[in-house]
Amino acid sequence: MSNTFKPFNNNFKGKSFISIDQLTKVSEIEKIFKVARQMEKIVLKKKPSNLLNGYCVAELFYQPSTRTFTSFLAAAEWLGALTIPIHGMSSYSSAVKGETIEDTVRTIYQTTAADLIVMRHPDNDSTEIAAKYSYVPVISAGAGTKEHPTQAILDLYTIEKELGRTNNLKVIFLGDLKYGRTIKSLGKLLVLMDKKLQLYLVSPKILKMPEDLVKTWRSQGVKIVETDNLQEVLPEADVLYATRVQKEWFEKEGKLDQYEKVKHAFDINLNTLKKAKKKMIIMHPLPRVGEIAYEVDNDPRAVYLPQMRAGLYTRMALMKLILLGDK
Amino acid sequence: MSNTFKPFNNNFKGKSFISIDQLTKVSEIEKIFKVARQMEKIVLKKKPSNLLNGYCVAELFYQPSTRTFTSFLAAAEWLGALTIPIHGMSSYSSAVKGETIEDTVRTIYQTTAADLIVMRHPDNDSTEIAAKYSYVPVISAGAGTKEHPTQAILDLYTIEKELGRTNNLKVIFLGDLKYGRTIKSLGKLLVLMDKKLQLYLVSPKILKMPEDLVKTWRSQGVKIVETDNLQEVLPEADVLYATRVQKEWFEKEGKLDQYEKVKHAFDINLNTLKKAKKKMIIMHPLPRVGEIAYEVDNDPRAVYLPQMRAGLYTRMALMKLILLGDK
Amino acid sequence: MSNTFKPFNNNFKGKSFISIDQLTKVSEIEKIFKVARQMEKIVLKKKPSNLLNGYCVAELFYQPSTRTFTSFLAAAEWLGALTIPIHGMSSYSSAVKGETIEDTVRTIYQTTAADLIVMRHPDNDSTEIAAKYSYVPVISAGAGTKEHPTQAILDLYTIEKELGRTNNLKVIFLGDLKYGRTIKSLGKLLVLMDKKLQLYLVSPKILKMPEDLVKTWRSQGVKIVETDNLQEVLPEADVLYATRVQKEWFEKEGKLDQYEKVKHAFDINLNTLKKAKKKMIIMHPLPRVGEIAYEVDNDPRAVYLPQMRAGLYTRMALMKLILLGDK
Repeated sequence: MSNTFKPFNNNFKGKSFISIDQLTKVSEIEKIFKVARQMEKIVLKKKPSNLLNGYCVAELFYQPSTRTFTSFLAAAEWLGALTIPIHGMSSYSSAVKGETIEDTVRTIYQTTAADLIVMRHPDNDSTEIAAKYSYVPVISAGAGTKEHPTQAILDLYTIEKELGRTNNLKVIFLGDLKYGRTIKSLGKLLVLMDKKLQLYLVSPKILKMPEDLVKTWRSQGVKIVETDNLQEVLPEADVLYATRVQKEWFEKEGKLDQYEKVKHAFDINLNTLKKAKKKMIIMHPLPRVGEIAYEVDNDPRAVYLPQMRAGLYTRMALMKLILLGDK
Repeated sequence: MSNTFKPFNNNFKGKSFISIDQLTKVSEIEKIFKVARQMEKIVLKKKPSNLLNGYCVAELFYQPSTRTFTSFLAAAEWLGALTIPIHGMSSYSSAVKGETIEDTVRTIYQTTAADLIVMRHPDNDSTEIAAKYSYVPVISAGAGTKEHPTQAILDLYTIEKELGRTNNLKVIFLGDLKYGRTIKSLGKLLVLMDKKLQLYLVSPKILKMPEDLVKTWRSQGVKIVETDNLQEVLPEADVLYATRVQKEWFEKEGKLDQYEKVKHAFDINLNTLKKAKKKMIIMHPLPRVGEIAYEVDNDPRAVYLPQMRAGLYTRMALMKLILLGDK
Repeated sequence: MSNTFKPFNNNFKGKSFISIDQLTKVSEIEKIFKVARQMEKIVLKKKPSNLLNGYCVAELFYQPSTRTFTSFLAAAEWLGALTIPIHGMSSYSSAVKGETIEDTVRTIYQTTAADLIVMRHPDNDSTEIAAKYSYVPVISAGAGTKEHPTQAILDLYTIEKELGRTNNLKVIFLGDLKYGRTIKSLGKLLVLMDKKLQLYLVSPKILKMPEDLVKTWRSQGVKIVETDNLQEVLPEADVLYATRVQKEWFEKEGKLDQYEKVKHAFDINLNTLKKAKKKMIIMHPLPRVGEIAYEVDNDPRAVYLPQMRAGLYTRMALMKLILLGDK
């Protein structure tokens, strides 16, 4: 975490949210989840709220995105905010003329009277720079390969909703554990909630979770098994969190032979799942490109579709807490 | 029509609208038009409705479009719905990463709690796939060269509004009758409304209406004249529906000599119109690129500009009927 | 000014605004500013207005823009209008298919029932054509290199707000005075407000203000000094309006040697500003690409960031005056 962004310390009001490391207390997660459950009622009853009437939320996206862009836009609308949604910042904004993030983020505040800026950008330090210069809070909707903090929160919310708990869990992280940002952030939150977490890190050898993170978690008490054999650990798991294994990484490292050996080891289909518990849940950040077969969609364990709805509720909760605080 | 999409059977509620073939009864058209007339009042009195308060309409466009995109967006807004308008799905969505329509349509429902999805896509079967997988109704805003069902409805609404009837009509379809989707769909609706329809199919020989459709209509009782001479049939017509004749098709079929002969035969200007009835109406789906001269715009017979307004009213009506039913 | 667009004559209702030359009376500026101050209260109290409930504002942008696009969108939203914001008209609209501005502007009215169209386009005569054909008023959000009338108004509003007056001023226009449209329009407004204006035109020799404009202003009584030495005139100035000097123009005219001599003469940093008055204000239309150092941002004389907020208030005022008149 940057020096400029301190932990929330149970107080979200007026603060930017650009790193999962700003969350350091269980009570903070509980607070977000409590509000998210209220938000769920607003949406399911189809009664848009007026909580954010008179507030203005600007959404600046410099990268393609369906689910995150629409989720934040819908979140602001369900809460009654004015919205300034700008997709394609890279093509249509003054970024084309060379404007810096520092200036863009202050510009948008001035031109719209925005109270909150949601930003997605391909650079790792983009949302941190934005938050530093912005007059109003910034929520990261993804920054390069580094942070996508609201994704981790919706993932954890899904686990709690589906399994009724966020502790006493056995969790498989499957696939690309080296480059994937999702499972690292979720890992941090799971460890925050329960030091006695059991983690199964299942990946091809060249896509293993970085050593330092494994070491840190072990030193905190987490039990960790690293393997490239999904079937070996599947029967124990409460959560199977799948991510995409991309051929490109093998090519890049000149190890296409390894890819040939493992490429089917990480496929999820009804056959793969035979040994899994009946109450296990299957998660995925989506989009998928073949790694989970369509036939799995109707399996009661598949929660990767409703998982996205959790993004709507938790992002509404964060907007509420950041703009209005606890009142 | 696909096996998955059955006729409306006078009940629109909760159903997708992806093919003109779903409309099989005169009473269905009358129902849409009755609601459209109510919608017209909402707009003309400048009193946005709250009929769709608490409903969320997502608009996913994979192709350039001004009139259809803005028309659906305005329709949802005049009815008080939350709106998630995404232009440029091909550039900004996860389609870039290879996500399928099957997943995109379910994703948007989850991320936004959308109650209705409006989709335009270059593939013929796109909106059918969308409707099959979607949890909520889908309205086609155009699918490849095959279907654009709401266009046919707005066209018919224009005829009824301008001429006061949808039967006892003599109608010219002019221009590209082979590839154009608009006149085929409108033709189907006209036949539905009145089997005694008189059709004049005016086109260059290589762009004639497909034989099977002509045969079907004849078998239903429709009187059809096929010709490449507009002036021959113009004096009889109540409706002149013009479409663009594209040079490309002649080039493609190696018949540019034919093009040279006919290229001016399908131009509409004040001179062309001399023999037409005073009460005839001139329609065109727009955009035009030269086939109707600007000087025609001020002729009282020209209705191709107000024709587009009918799209707003009829799309509002369809949204209302699909989301709320008859109540 | 075109023949088709007459002066406002103190009455904005129902009129297009496409040229700064439509403003010919001090009382017109005072009227806009009075309403803009009311708009300021609406935004600062965070109480969105319902003044434009039932009105629909369409925004058609054919060029990249962050500040102008978001400013107009926010203006319409703060006033309670329905909004149809279309960024990327060049990629996503029927312009791709060759549709003319004449047809597009009438199409949008028909498809949405828009009451006002805001347009930005790369062609100099684009918004004039739009206004001529449109059924409803058009506001220019920038047309080629020729007009950007709302920019001049927000600039003047900023001067009045920061200095408390729009007369008895000594104003520096700095940088590219040949191609820049901003300072020419602002110049016209300043002359309208006070014939005794003192102007310092500071630019490299090849980027001087066009002779005819200088001549016209002198004939109206304006005192004008032309120089390429900023420090010479800086101590006198009440307003320093900076614009970008682009290396390209020197290259184009084969005078890169001149560029080398002047390139730092127009940089603004804390050192440059040493001799300036404490009450002088520093303006810039932004985006900047290096011509004002970040260290200046915190200087109390820097107003180029709040200057953009003036765009929100004055555009709200113009929308109100054009749609509702004086009531």
